Amino acid sequence: MKRFENLKELLAEYKKLWSLQYAESLMGWDIETYMPEDDAMTRGEVISTFSEIKREIYQKLGKIIERYEGKEGLNDEERGILRVLGRDYKYYSKIPLEIIQQIERVRSEATVVWRQAKAKSDYSMFKPYLEKIKDLQIKIAEYWGYEDHPYNALLDLNEEGFSIRDGDRIFSRLLPELSDIMKKVSEKGYFPKSHELEEVSYDIGRMKVVNEEVIKILEMPKGKFRLDISAHPFTVRISADDVRITTRYEGKDFRSTLFSVVHECGHAIYELGIDRELEGTPIGGGVSMGIHEAQSRFWENIIGRSREFVSLIYPKLKQNLDFLSKYNEDDIYRYFNIVRPSFIRVDADEVTYNFHIAVRYEIEKRLIGGEIKVDEIPSLWSELMEKYLGITPKNDAEGALQDIHWTGGFGYFPAYTLGNVVSGIVYSKTPNLYNLLREGKIGEIKTIMTEKIYKYGATYSPKDLLRKTFGEEYNPEGLILYLRHKYLKS
Amino acid sequence: MKRFENLKELLAEYKKLWSLQYAESLMGWDIETYMPEDDAMTRGEVISTFSEIKREIYQKLGKIIERYEGKEGLNDEERGILRVLGRDYKYYSKIPLEIIQQIERVRSEATVVWRQAKAKSDYSMFKPYLEKIKDLQIKIAEYWGYEDHPYNALLDLNEEGFSIRDGDRIFSRLLPELSDIMKKVSEKGYFPKSHELEEVSYDIGRMKVVNEEVIKILEMPKGKFRLDISAHPFTVRISADDVRITTRYEGKDFRSTLFSVVHECGHAIYELGIDRELEGTPIGGGVSMGIHEAQSRFWENIIGRSREFVSLIYPKLKQNLDFLSKYNEDDIYRYFNIVRPSFIRVDADEVTYNFHIAVRYEIEKRLIGGEIKVDEIPSLWSELMEKYLGITPKNDAEGALQDIHWTGGFGYFPAYTLGNVVSGIVYSKTPNLYNLLREGKIGEIKTIMTEKIYKYGATYSPKDLLRKTFGEEYNPEGLILYLRHKYLKS
Repeated sequence: MKRFENLKELLAEYKKLWSLQYAESLMGWDIETYMPEDDAMTRGEVISTFSEIKREIYQKLGKIIERYEGKEGLNDEERGILRVLGRDYKYYSKIPLEIIQQIERVRSEATVVWRQAKAKSDYSMFKPYLEKIKDLQIKIAEYWGYEDHPYNALLDLNEEGFSIRDGDRIFSRLLPELSDIMKKVSEKGYFPKSHELEEVSYDIGRMKVVNEEVIKILEMPKGKFRLDISAHPFTVRISADDVRITTRYEGKDFRSTLFSVVHECGHAIYELGIDRELEGTPIGGGVSMGIHEAQSRFWENIIGRSREFVSLIYPKLKQNLDFLSKYNEDDIYRYFNIVRPSFIRVDADEVTYNFHIAVRYEIEKRLIGGEIKVDEIPSLWSELMEKYLGITPKNDAEGALQDIHWTGGFGYFPAYTLGNVVSGIVYSKTPNLYNLLREGKIGEIKTIMTEKIYKYGATYSPKDLLRKTFGEEYNPEGLILYLRHKYLKS
Repeated sequence: MKRFENLKELLAEYKKLWSLQYAESLMGWDIETYMPEDDAMTRGEVISTFSEIKREIYQKLGKIIERYEGKEGLNDEERGILRVLGRDYKYYSKIPLEIIQQIERVRSEATVVWRQAKAKSDYSMFKPYLEKIKDLQIKIAEYWGYEDHPYNALLDLNEEGFSIRDGDRIFSRLLPELSDIMKKVSEKGYFPKSHELEEVSYDIGRMKVVNEEVIKILEMPKGKFRLDISAHPFTVRISADDVRITTRYEGKDFRSTLFSVVHECGHAIYELGIDRELEGTPIGGGVSMGIHEAQSRFWENIIGRSREFVSLIYPKLKQNLDFLSKYNEDDIYRYFNIVRPSFIRVDADEVTYNFHIAVRYEIEKRLIGGEIKVDEIPSLWSELMEKYLGITPKNDAEGALQDIHWTGGFGYFPAYTLGNVVSGIVYSKTPNLYNLLREGKIGEIKTIMTEKIYKYGATYSPKDLLRKTFGEEYNPEGLILYLRHKYLKS
């Protein structure tokens, strides 16, 4: 933290915000890992009090930021700092506290109801909450401001600079290609529709050892990283020197925990690759969810599900999982790359995954645009699933109720497809990738990625970063190339 | 939190402080348990930034507190809140920031040097730091204010209301009695000077099970409590619904980890017994270190090392520790209650422990009073050890360098003896205690303690609490009675 001579006063005040966010990250991690359950309510109060303190600090920061407006001679990092803080400040200053508090309240109520509704597959239970959430999201869009369509505000809030124009362009190019690939994969038959290993149980103790070995192969730095267990896998960046991931052990189908570890390691590798000098500033973390998902999906899919990676980890798998004795590397590779249309997004493979996002994107866009009502979501869901994947969910639990995300609002899902698209760009612009991987040169792959993306943190907006590094924005051609090459050898 | 109508404004502002302290407690716990080691520096920065934020909040609180001065019609809790916050505010307002920062700096440097000095048993390395620490402590005493002797300020800072008059009175009555008991225990020979189990190794996995069983026997509430591992055992209260302890596994002499668990459970039982309604106020935690040590020592010694408790846990010990097959309950009881003069405070037994505190108390008093120089500490240490326990340390590692505490200042140690004294009062005022324990009625013992001490939190100052509940202050007669009864059956 020495290259920001122009922003000394701002960063001194920002340090308070930073320290609060640091503690919030740790509290968030602890909630999911070790917190005794009775403390949930109290922790909620603490976190909401933190919001109050942060709001006060933002007010001070806002005044300082205004003074920098139009200031010349700033370097890229300094401009990045003002951009990121400006967005945060805009959020706090444009959106009334009572709206944010309403959203928080509805979210926590809706989360409880969603669980029950999903368990009973009863959309009507969740519907009134979705109604409230939609109304609040439209208000947010109005306060935040947008061009053309209120959904653009929500997209921008979730992924800086992203809009319907980007989304439509991506999906209109991607979906027909994916349909074609899906059809041909099925015809070729090399990648299976199911695999007997999906039903095989594993010993959790042995699987923990496998995961530790995978972490070693991925060269995660011991002094800055740890793996714990939680109900839903996640990554949290506490600081540049403390990034933690979690996984879960379901007891069968060992792909699931293995690839959750590789996926979360991808997030962690990004955070750990950011220039250490940016720590303590608003640009010291990953720039956006889309760019983050690009890293996790790059490591999970493009690296982790590759034939080369199977060779790297195969000895450790065999050593620890006795039931693998009769499977060779190719068997494992095919098990890792089952391709089949399915109802549940989180279980989807690389080829079908983006259809799930397209379903949500279409629904959100039309809902926020007033073209459909909350009532109509399940039928539109079924219609789109039929159109894209040729299957129709038999109930709402495997349809519109499957994800928790809508309890928190709209505009979040598209970043998953952005992640896939950007990971495809990285693939297409890194010709030497699989040679390095074949030789186990994980460190070199990290170095390349660090130079292309990681080191900048949030210095540039997602689109600026992509333009600067790759000369293009959300171009889906790389992803198409990758999928065609991997699944069709063409 | 509903009985404080008079302090609404104060408590609204205090809530911010409370939420910061909550997060600090969690960060402190994490440092000792799960934090990746490279994050230590950054976490230090976060914690020091928290201090800045807290200082700002204290300034606001100070102004509100002043307005309440002389206000009538407050209830006991409200007066307690003003008392505790008034003390905290006095600390922040009377002691200049630069002194506090100097203390923090010297402490962190001294901690590093102390480790090296102790390893080399080289007092001269540590001496210049002790010199600085002494000078800073005398400054603190001047800023804080005192009657008669500057050490009184340090005692009061560490234990509200405690003074040299109390300390001298306790030790002058206690030490001759302890000498007499020590001599007679040795003559009687029932409690051994050493035991072969001290050298026996245990399996850590099995010992963890034993500790979990002990936690069950102590009826620790699963939803509000957890046990982890750290280099030095400790208890942390994160909230009324989240109290955590740690232990360590040294691999032999299983008393050590077992009694660290019982000791820390004692601290935790206190915190968990405080009236839930006080959470979120400044009186929601234990009132002082002395009263806290009274609880940990009550559970560790008066409960944990009793013949009755051995009977309660014996089946679980036998079940998990195979090497105990040839030992009966009486053997275990005697192993738990070895009595011998020794050099290291933390290894000392109930009979000799307070001599170790007396050594430190005398040295601190004379040093702060200007009667001795830092130079003279080792020789005075040896002299006092010889006088009290009849043994002379062969080097400073087993003398003045054994404890880390002086890196943080003076006046802390006496609270350990206060803890013993107060646990003795509790013993002498709870005639039914061992009958309840014999029947395993841990819950009833907790209820009695809750009514006597726990529920009040910090509502009353330590002395007021003792007077209110027991009609006396730091009277050592209970402790003497307890030790005579246990060790001499008289």
